[in-house]
Amino acid sequence: MRTDVTHFKCEITDGIATIALDRPDRKNPLTFDSYAELRDWFRDLHYSDEVNAVVFASNGGNFSSGGDVHDIIGPLTKMTMKELLAFTRMTGDLVKAIVNCGKPVIAAIDGICVGAGAIIAMAADMRIATPEAKTAFLFTRVGLAGCDMGACAILPRIIGQGRAAELLYTGRSMSAEEGHAWGFHNKLVAADDLEAEAQTMAARIAAGPNFAHMMTKTMLVQEWSMSIEQAIEAEAQAQAICMQTGDFERAYNAFVAKEKPAFEGN
Amino acid sequence: MRTDVTHFKCEITDGIATIALDRPDRKNPLTFDSYAELRDWFRDLHYSDEVNAVVFASNGGNFSSGGDVHDIIGPLTKMTMKELLAFTRMTGDLVKAIVNCGKPVIAAIDGICVGAGAIIAMAADMRIATPEAKTAFLFTRVGLAGCDMGACAILPRIIGQGRAAELLYTGRSMSAEEGHAWGFHNKLVAADDLEAEAQTMAARIAAGPNFAHMMTKTMLVQEWSMSIEQAIEAEAQAQAICMQTGDFERAYNAFVAKEKPAFEGN
Amino acid sequence: MRTDVTHFKCEITDGIATIALDRPDRKNPLTFDSYAELRDWFRDLHYSDEVNAVVFASNGGNFSSGGDVHDIIGPLTKMTMKELLAFTRMTGDLVKAIVNCGKPVIAAIDGICVGAGAIIAMAADMRIATPEAKTAFLFTRVGLAGCDMGACAILPRIIGQGRAAELLYTGRSMSAEEGHAWGFHNKLVAADDLEAEAQTMAARIAAGPNFAHMMTKTMLVQEWSMSIEQAIEAEAQAQAICMQTGDFERAYNAFVAKEKPAFEGN
Repeated sequence: MRTDVTHFKCEITDGIATIALDRPDRKNPLTFDSYAELRDWFRDLHYSDEVNAVVFASNGGNFSSGGDVHDIIGPLTKMTMKELLAFTRMTGDLVKAIVNCGKPVIAAIDGICVGAGAIIAMAADMRIATPEAKTAFLFTRVGLAGCDMGACAILPRIIGQGRAAELLYTGRSMSAEEGHAWGFHNKLVAADDLEAEAQTMAARIAAGPNFAHMMTKTMLVQEWSMSIEQAIEAEAQAQAICMQTGDFERAYNAFVAKEKPAFEGN
Repeated sequence: MRTDVTHFKCEITDGIATIALDRPDRKNPLTFDSYAELRDWFRDLHYSDEVNAVVFASNGGNFSSGGDVHDIIGPLTKMTMKELLAFTRMTGDLVKAIVNCGKPVIAAIDGICVGAGAIIAMAADMRIATPEAKTAFLFTRVGLAGCDMGACAILPRIIGQGRAAELLYTGRSMSAEEGHAWGFHNKLVAADDLEAEAQTMAARIAAGPNFAHMMTKTMLVQEWSMSIEQAIEAEAQAQAICMQTGDFERAYNAFVAKEKPAFEGN
Repeated sequence: MRTDVTHFKCEITDGIATIALDRPDRKNPLTFDSYAELRDWFRDLHYSDEVNAVVFASNGGNFSSGGDVHDIIGPLTKMTMKELLAFTRMTGDLVKAIVNCGKPVIAAIDGICVGAGAIIAMAADMRIATPEAKTAFLFTRVGLAGCDMGACAILPRIIGQGRAAELLYTGRSMSAEEGHAWGFHNKLVAADDLEAEAQTMAARIAAGPNFAHMMTKTMLVQEWSMSIEQAIEAEAQAQAICMQTGDFERAYNAFVAKEKPAFEGN
């Protein structure tokens, strides 16, 4: 898996990829280039056996200020519809790539987390935040709709339809406490502990069973709009596949031997 | 947009339509006539450029006591299936008209909010309530099912499947505090502040961008049963449309000029 | 309705079936036999007029320890794909049978509630728990995926997508307090009160209107993946059917006579 990326930070240690936007002086805005490179990186991740969990980290006390007003919004106001659709599809493709990458993604959110930054946090599987985290889906502030990169579909399933509607219409900031009470943040921790806490959760997941985690992630997306009956049949098939992995047998053997299983991801 | 309505109160000021049922002595029950007139009014609203947000207000300390037992339930017990289906479709059409009207709707809930009144509150985009608000989906109390006007689909997405099931089976009252903790109410305020608070939220929304708000409302409904991939593509198209509005350019120009944008809804 | 079951406890009193797994010394694990017998019993329940509500009770201080490691997991590690799929479909069929049985199901959860036990609790309509209840979807601990028996579809709709993801990836225990705050548990009560509280809720539901309750349960499942427009039309039809029941007329007559209605389930 590539770590020689240009438009964001990336390192891989013990099966955990830790990435972050890297313009901390400007609170880590996204640019055309970082969108595209993140999209490609998450697409590649789908095929990687080297990475088993991802931490999308904050940098310099902030997660992300979203699409840069000068670098992105200015040019967008001059584009043709063909170019605009190419842009909105590219940003949507980043969310598709995150939810389809097959590895659990943990967002570690400090400070500002707005616009496309809030979307990336939303697209992660889990979110750990500091009390200073401020998350805003502020598209309406720039004259746009709340339906950006899947927000009208995904945000209501995380925090409920009524709360999502308020955030998307008003663009107001969701405090860390609200986010925790509403199920957006899985956990709040002090800023000094954020990195360690996210790594601990990632390490717990990366310890496996990773083939099974990939299947859980796949099915969370796959069953999104299925009927209950379809979802149950889909899980019967998915879990039967997992029951033929070595990790299932390893877990059983470890249990019998009163040991902790060592998963191998196959 | 018509304000000369017969079966409910309606006034329009500064792009905000404020409506309320108007039999406060009986806690504002619905009748065949008010159902039909509300349905037609919300359908017309879809085409209005004059109204940008709606406050569905309480009146005399109560929101609504739902379908009137004497005026509605009595006659229903005598109807043929053809007539019953015409009635249940008319009530369902009111919910469809509310969710499809293209303008954010805020319910301002004081006191009794039950039966079809609770459904109207549920069909709104956001809900502000007083500590005295009591919301009950009490269809089972009159021998009917909880599946009324979309409740089995919409209520679970607002407060969660387990809580919705309890309210729909038992018909029990949800307190204002429960409603707030569960995401039904976006905010609790004292009764004296209810009207002002709802108008403030409506004014914030009506300040625009209103074309974009219409698109947010459209997509919250449109993506209800889409897959994640379909929803992301749908938003790419919807947002690209919004990027060709003047409001998007106005927001950018205002940002560059360090001013507050003045949205025009196009 | 059969009460002569072999692999779980079952009694029926006043229209309430109370069932429980029955190996309290081992915290009530499931076996191949109890899965199959529960599935068949819930399938039969669909056709019963004798039972109007079900309490799935705890036994000896615990709800269920899930699929037995020796009796189930050991044999599964030796099976062919054909046999595995037959097993995962049988377990999925139990969830299908619970959600399709037409009678509200209340899980009364004390102590351990894990694996397939947590799934049964999730598949119930409502859940009452004690402060000692510990619920864990611990499939990953045995090398399997969180997508078991519908969990990736159903759990997110009860507690939200982010919280569900964490529980399904990590297999960690959800405390009783978390479960209550998140909408998994409808109510927490002391262990001594659990049985009485579950019976009280069941009695309230079994008092009817039972035809209408059946319709509510049907539509909660039926509308799972419908669009809002489809769901509203489906409810218009379902409620029109309920309006031709005697229970609807009984409720109206009782109201006029200022009496409490006595529902008859037709």
